Amino acid sequence: MARTGRRPGQTQTRDGILAAARNQFAARGYGGATIRGIAAEAGVNPALVHHFFGSKDQVFVAALNLPFNPAVLVETILEGPREHVGERIVRLFLGLWHDPATRAPFLALLRSVAASPEVAAQLRTFMETAVLARVAAALDLPMLRLTAAASQMMGLAMVRYVLAAEPLASAPDDEVADLMGPVIQYYFDA
Amino acid sequence: MARTGRRPGQTQTRDGILAAARNQFAARGYGGATIRGIAAEAGVNPALVHHFFGSKDQVFVAALNLPFNPAVLVETILEGPREHVGERIVRLFLGLWHDPATRAPFLALLRSVAASPEVAAQLRTFMETAVLARVAAALDLPMLRLTAAASQMMGLAMVRYVLAAEPLASAPDDEVADLMGPVIQYYFDA
Repeated sequence: MARTGRRPGQTQTRDGILAAARNQFAARGYGGATIRGIAAEAGVNPALVHHFFGSKDQVFVAALNLPFNPAVLVETILEGPREHVGERIVRLFLGLWHDPATRAPFLALLRSVAASPEVAAQLRTFMETAVLARVAAALDLPMLRLTAAASQMMGLAMVRYVLAAEPLASAPDDEVADLMGPVIQYYFDA
Repeated sequence: MARTGRRPGQTQTRDGILAAARNQFAARGYGGATIRGIAAEAGVNPALVHHFFGSKDQVFVAALNLPFNPAVLVETILEGPREHVGERIVRLFLGLWHDPATRAPFLALLRSVAASPEVAAQLRTFMETAVLARVAAALDLPMLRLTAAASQMMGLAMVRYVLAAEPLASAPDDEVADLMGPVIQYYFDA
């Protein structure tokens, strides 16, 4: 963990900010919460929140313990040739689930989304703002196609990892990428 | 409800069979449970279970309050020209979710599947046996492609109805069928 070397007071402050952030996101949603409001609830200066986390996106990622960084996600989707974007997205997604360290929080996230409309609303607005809208703008793509592509990725997670339905559950990553890459590519070829 | 006109004793017997069925499916899974075992636990003759429900599929549908009939599902998928099977499946699925009477139990089912590995395992085996394997056999289709098609339908449900992400959440059924029909068709064109 990145906390090694941090002084106890810093860890405490950071945890206090994250607790305040969880409250603020739950009460106001991702769109309504602000760094200023989170700082006020934590009793710290907003500059300190920026110092620890950078942007609101990153506060959200840390507060909800999300197993991915939206900035890296967007960068990976946008870099490289557009005619291979479908395969790139499927491989990126399979890689995240392949790693046991990210798979467990992903499963927990899917469960909270299914169980709680509030968590679903927070994650939806976050994904729209921090990932989908950025990709849509960069590639001049209708949001309907982007949400459709996201639905295929989410369904893959449900059937491969939650339901664990064979043969999709045990198919090698390469085979899944070969089969689903063209689907994501189709959604991106507006 | 279909219970009107049934004598109280019948309703009690039927409910007793369903309670026994839920226990047996939970303890043995969909594959392991038998009509004989369910009847034994309910203290009735197996013929009575057949009389009330027909097949084990139908006992499962009633016990888990599933909002669809697998036999009708398979029939709708298989009837009509194969070159339109993709659009047919998407429209069938959207129709089931469109009806508020089936939408609520569908949402409840998605939540239980995400929350409980036991429910996930029961539903997985049931869907494999009662729907996917039958369609795969009739159309000579690899199960990998069928589970991939199922994953797109499940993801559509998650993003359109659980996450309610726009614009996919409010897009008219026709627009969704036009966009996703070709994806399901692709999976079926092995």
